[in-house]
Amino acid sequence: MNRRYAILAPGHFASDAKTAHGVIAYGGDEVVAVIDAESAGKTIHDVVPYLQSTAPIVATVQEALQFAPTSLLIGTAPKGGGLPADWRAAILSAIGARLEVVSGLHDQLGEDPDFKLAAQRAGTTIWDVREPPAVPLFSGAVYGVTAPTLLLVGNDCSVGKMTVALELCRAAERAGNKAAFVPTGQTGIMIAGWGISIDRVIADFAPGATESLVLYAAQSKPDLIVVEGQGSINHPAYAPVTLALMYGAAPDALVLVCDPLRDRIGGYRTPTLGYRELIRLHEALLATVKPARVAGIALNTRYLDDAAARKEIERAEAETQLPADDVVRYGPDALYAAVAPQMRKGRPCGV
Amino acid sequence: MNRRYAILAPGHFASDAKTAHGVIAYGGDEVVAVIDAESAGKTIHDVVPYLQSTAPIVATVQEALQFAPTSLLIGTAPKGGGLPADWRAAILSAIGARLEVVSGLHDQLGEDPDFKLAAQRAGTTIWDVREPPAVPLFSGAVYGVTAPTLLLVGNDCSVGKMTVALELCRAAERAGNKAAFVPTGQTGIMIAGWGISIDRVIADFAPGATESLVLYAAQSKPDLIVVEGQGSINHPAYAPVTLALMYGAAPDALVLVCDPLRDRIGGYRTPTLGYRELIRLHEALLATVKPARVAGIALNTRYLDDAAARKEIERAEAETQLPADDVVRYGPDALYAAVAPQMRKGRPCGV
Repeated sequence: MNRRYAILAPGHFASDAKTAHGVIAYGGDEVVAVIDAESAGKTIHDVVPYLQSTAPIVATVQEALQFAPTSLLIGTAPKGGGLPADWRAAILSAIGARLEVVSGLHDQLGEDPDFKLAAQRAGTTIWDVREPPAVPLFSGAVYGVTAPTLLLVGNDCSVGKMTVALELCRAAERAGNKAAFVPTGQTGIMIAGWGISIDRVIADFAPGATESLVLYAAQSKPDLIVVEGQGSINHPAYAPVTLALMYGAAPDALVLVCDPLRDRIGGYRTPTLGYRELIRLHEALLATVKPARVAGIALNTRYLDDAAARKEIERAEAETQLPADDVVRYGPDALYAAVAPQMRKGRPCGV
Repeated sequence: MNRRYAILAPGHFASDAKTAHGVIAYGGDEVVAVIDAESAGKTIHDVVPYLQSTAPIVATVQEALQFAPTSLLIGTAPKGGGLPADWRAAILSAIGARLEVVSGLHDQLGEDPDFKLAAQRAGTTIWDVREPPAVPLFSGAVYGVTAPTLLLVGNDCSVGKMTVALELCRAAERAGNKAAFVPTGQTGIMIAGWGISIDRVIADFAPGATESLVLYAAQSKPDLIVVEGQGSINHPAYAPVTLALMYGAAPDALVLVCDPLRDRIGGYRTPTLGYRELIRLHEALLATVKPARVAGIALNTRYLDDAAARKEIERAEAETQLPADDVVRYGPDALYAAVAPQMRKGRPCGV
């Protein structure tokens, strides 16, 4: 389905609507309007300058309807848990106008009696993107995928693994290669319009869910499969999801995404690891199941000035003897060109 | 609650009722009867000689009632998925007699309308032990536990990690130390009467679920906490659960359980790892979060004769410079005595 999104972000679009910004920046589907009374009358680009879209910001769902959206996207949760009354009214209004509702909220909108009944009556659907479908156990079928597969890993959550994956896909396309992005978390799913939140899958089935995503991506006969990463291998809470992606995607190469200023895992006292230790751990684990090497390092230097960014990139290269770059600051083409030769199809152990 | 179990195992008790045998061998609750018409009239010991219990085997739930059970335990699933009609009748008969039903089946008996309504009417309960409760995200509270914690890991599933954990608890008790066994899978849960099937927890919450189990065990002020292991660190499907136990339990020492004849991960082509590679991988992962060392090796030499078993134990010791033994064949006291000095409380990274 080609969606046309109206994005619901009341009071949030200018500030913390991370999912909305991601869908506008990278989404395959068009964003035709944003609903946020605080910025109504401006364009997306007016409010978030790094986004190129000039789609309008309006105050209400009713006003957004003139731009013929097919779907209402809810990407940002209001602070404090429950859905405020005006959000409920906006969602019901969209359902009444037969828009599909696409939600990344923790609470399942499809299980809310009001929304569920309204959607049934209107003949439209609610897609809770965090809610995983039934998935199989890991089978090893992923070892038969012929396209080289790249997995993003990193030194913590929220360091830019999804952004690097999407930028490397763009670089691959510019270099004449068809790249398939594999979404494994809610923003990635909204951007691509498919995918599974691996962190919400029952632990036993997380590698199988990852495998099923790669198999699905392979159906389009891409030249390259790029799997969005999650967590970090020494994250006390999320490392099992990281490992599920490593064994389930069976990558042929990794790109390591690091925020060099992040010295502790977010929310914990656990220290983040250095480049060489991260490389060693990931490669040692994969070597026992489906060998793959780290091919390059993508640094998130957002909080550094240009000189400090270049110095950190040089340090990473000197420490690891691998190509390093910031694909947002300097564009992804150089890092893509440096890592592409490493993306040769490898074989699993024991075959 | 002190349970008195009647175990339902029609046609299975003599052969593959692994959970039933485990509960009889190690359970804290008494097994007062087994229901299996094929062996009716004999005792447990008659049919499974290594079990010491002389409790009777009877043909029907009605006959079992004379031994005053509080609970019907269903530990083995019939082949082929669905519940056959005679099992349904037996379970309904137990519910009618106000027995609690404790089930390790994949299908949730508590969600079956017939069973649910019958239990409501009889005023009794159904405990589906595989179904996890709501669990928190990992918090790090486990780092405050003062009892040394031992985690079992291994070269594959079904190599005896639970049995070794239980045997080491027995040895600890004999040595005058109070040991708390932490169950992380269905048979362990039935044996201990509490616990969580970590493999059924949503991936993000698996370390938090493990942490909550260790915190619960710590409440009884044990001298030692022994956590049942699951899977293996290079198991393509179950390694995320293994890693969740490692980071979530934050152990102070590990014991490695290996079947030396297992050369591939069960159901996959992935080779199992050697002793030294297993030790390296587990210690390298833990070193980044909560350092702990492998303190000893428990071999499962069930399929070897005595000479071959002793040779394999010697080989493991020579290769690793660690104490090794088969705690079933030779008893757990020697291995416990050898590893106990390694169980000193350690500190997490970054504190």
